[in-house]
Amino acid sequence: MKVAIIGGGAAGMTAASRIKALQPSWEVVVFEKSKYVSHAPCGVPFYISGMVEHFEELCTYPTEYFVQERGLDVRTQTKVVEVGDHYLIAEKDGKEYTYEWDKLLFATGAKAERLSTKNDEMDGILYVDNFEKAREVKSAAMKANRVVIVGSGYIGVEMALALVKLGKRVTVIEASERPLPEYDAEMAAILKSEMEKYLELKLSEKVIDFEGKDKVEKVITNKSEYSCDLVVVAAGMSPNTKLAEKIVKIGKKGAIKTNSRMQTSNEDVYAAGDCAESINLVTKKPDWIAAAAPANKMGYVAGVNIAGKELHYPGSLKSQFSSFMDLEIGKTGLSEHEAVKEGYDVVSTFITSRTSAKYLPNGLIHLKVVAERNGRLLGVQAMGKGVAMRIYGAIVLLYNNCSIKDLFFADFPYYPPLTRVWDPLVIAARNLFRKVGLP
Amino acid sequence: MKVAIIGGGAAGMTAASRIKALQPSWEVVVFEKSKYVSHAPCGVPFYISGMVEHFEELCTYPTEYFVQERGLDVRTQTKVVEVGDHYLIAEKDGKEYTYEWDKLLFATGAKAERLSTKNDEMDGILYVDNFEKAREVKSAAMKANRVVIVGSGYIGVEMALALVKLGKRVTVIEASERPLPEYDAEMAAILKSEMEKYLELKLSEKVIDFEGKDKVEKVITNKSEYSCDLVVVAAGMSPNTKLAEKIVKIGKKGAIKTNSRMQTSNEDVYAAGDCAESINLVTKKPDWIAAAAPANKMGYVAGVNIAGKELHYPGSLKSQFSSFMDLEIGKTGLSEHEAVKEGYDVVSTFITSRTSAKYLPNGLIHLKVVAERNGRLLGVQAMGKGVAMRIYGAIVLLYNNCSIKDLFFADFPYYPPLTRVWDPLVIAARNLFRKVGLP
Repeated sequence: MKVAIIGGGAAGMTAASRIKALQPSWEVVVFEKSKYVSHAPCGVPFYISGMVEHFEELCTYPTEYFVQERGLDVRTQTKVVEVGDHYLIAEKDGKEYTYEWDKLLFATGAKAERLSTKNDEMDGILYVDNFEKAREVKSAAMKANRVVIVGSGYIGVEMALALVKLGKRVTVIEASERPLPEYDAEMAAILKSEMEKYLELKLSEKVIDFEGKDKVEKVITNKSEYSCDLVVVAAGMSPNTKLAEKIVKIGKKGAIKTNSRMQTSNEDVYAAGDCAESINLVTKKPDWIAAAAPANKMGYVAGVNIAGKELHYPGSLKSQFSSFMDLEIGKTGLSEHEAVKEGYDVVSTFITSRTSAKYLPNGLIHLKVVAERNGRLLGVQAMGKGVAMRIYGAIVLLYNNCSIKDLFFADFPYYPPLTRVWDPLVIAARNLFRKVGLP
Repeated sequence: MKVAIIGGGAAGMTAASRIKALQPSWEVVVFEKSKYVSHAPCGVPFYISGMVEHFEELCTYPTEYFVQERGLDVRTQTKVVEVGDHYLIAEKDGKEYTYEWDKLLFATGAKAERLSTKNDEMDGILYVDNFEKAREVKSAAMKANRVVIVGSGYIGVEMALALVKLGKRVTVIEASERPLPEYDAEMAAILKSEMEKYLELKLSEKVIDFEGKDKVEKVITNKSEYSCDLVVVAAGMSPNTKLAEKIVKIGKKGAIKTNSRMQTSNEDVYAAGDCAESINLVTKKPDWIAAAAPANKMGYVAGVNIAGKELHYPGSLKSQFSSFMDLEIGKTGLSEHEAVKEGYDVVSTFITSRTSAKYLPNGLIHLKVVAERNGRLLGVQAMGKGVAMRIYGAIVLLYNNCSIKDLFFADFPYYPPLTRVWDPLVIAARNLFRKVGLP
């Protein structure tokens, strides 16, 4: 059996390793257009800020590891230019060749959305498009004084922080009325006031175009203009499905349609990671959830099924952690505005609570819990201190379709330096009890 | 309606407040033998070590708050000496009086086990018996040089740490072969090596007696003897059921038998907190689980039901956090030896993992996951860094009867400073996949 894997990121390398482990005699070939495999773009902001010195550290393993230890045929700097029925055409150093496969996995990831303004490809405007762009951004940032970041999703916020830490004057321009627009307004307001201590944040402002002689010198918005020597665009991502479109179905959210075995509409073709569709565990509907941990698990499941065994991917929750300076940030499931948009009859509570016993204060946590009126939990957002533990608990509650009663009764222990007798999650549950009429 | 509540700790005050909130016209009387209510003994070690300056800070609220804000009749320094059919006899300042009740709640807590050696009541030997003892221990500790602690359960370990922080020479004597005997040996070994940096830890050693002229000067064990000026005994607790025994049934573990409404064998009598039985959510059997957060929730449920509404307490998991210096400690559900004792066919994995991306190291976590061979999770133990978030996740997994597949698929996100792409919990799940034959 011959298995072709297009893309050597998290999903592709996990699937490849899994297949080889379960079927050692099979030929497993990974086609990767960059020089690197198992690249982890989540680390890019830490490389930009200087917390990570060497670019190569961001790769989980070097290519040789997969070749020597795992017996994979890894073809880097090789671009797949066409995929057809049980064949593909790859190109390396300008030479094309055909590879015939029995099973194929698309692990082609996601790409940065273009701004599609007139001068959006001008020198000095960088899209954090692929892993290798990180080097370009870093070297441009080292020389720059004023940087404009377009977009304040997770990538925009984390790039902004990295550049602030590098000592740059940073302006963030966001078309929506708040940073991290997936969060609700009361949560985003906390992040906003933290960001504004360190940078200029322009909200409800749309980039119209760029100006400059040899390279970008100015960003023009619908409200103002901003001088700069570097622009980093982080205005959304979309699944990379160009190659796949011709042989498999694409879902409503633009990603490759899959079943729970990560199999596409073509039974010999699988898809995993940021290019693939998966189930949103809150809405139960197909969704596009692009994130590193789900990508690895989709890759694992795809690998197991390609190898002829059976494992089903249940889906995920869009769980996310981030931070800005001392503000820890986390979310799982839906925010209130996302839940309303999905048509749920929503109740919610927003609290600010100590994270620990009053006599051992270690900070405040801001917490929003969203539920259906029938009690089912829909999502949790948190900022402040002690965020990770509450989000880990909330993730498993949502994963299990739990209710606000479960949020109350889940056995979170009391330990004065770390928690309260009534954990902030439990306080939120009690507020929701009142709203839905529980005693 | 007249409701009598015996004991003004976490369970008692929560129940009392709940009843008054739901039935404002009812008379709710709390009988508390000490001067304090809503006392939180979990904070005692932080008072001993000096992290908390004033003893009163350990109470969640002062008595006046419950009287003025919540309309309760709180009778402190009042000891209930007898309970009979719809009456009780209370004693204050040597005077006894009868109080007739329609509904009664036992919230009498737990007491420290005596060592029952010949001289175990000698001066300078202190049992952390009740909340007010903390003052006595603190003032004795301030004068002492060498302290012996008998027992190394959570209370023993935390008292030892408090006394080390106070600059005392501390010896801990433990009858079992490891500290925190509820943990498995490989976990306890990590704590042992941390403790031994700061104190003398004597394992598999039994206290036979004490010697001294006016006060304790020496602890005699089956192996050796230890000079000291103070002994703190933390050799286990047991439910305080002396008053209850005459009118309600006691369960197998020695605590007051209850149903999920926290109702005893007598329909007008309820029990909550450390004196009451509750369901162990792993074994599904009645158990004695004495801890602050469950006590509060049992109190809440008892209060709701006493007030004529309906709410059911599902039980708990014996979830616990602690720490020793920089070592974070946590456990939920059963350890392997506890699971074997319960008769489960057990598989387990013990791992040591980075808690975050390799290029942003923030320490190691040691993790043990115990499951049934059919895949159901039975318990998780953790020590090191990043313990709280993993235990919060594990708690909800156990609360929902989850399997090792759920441990793998629960949507724990990747954020390089805080987690790994494959979270330590997920690495443990994969190890267990191999052990039970999952792909």
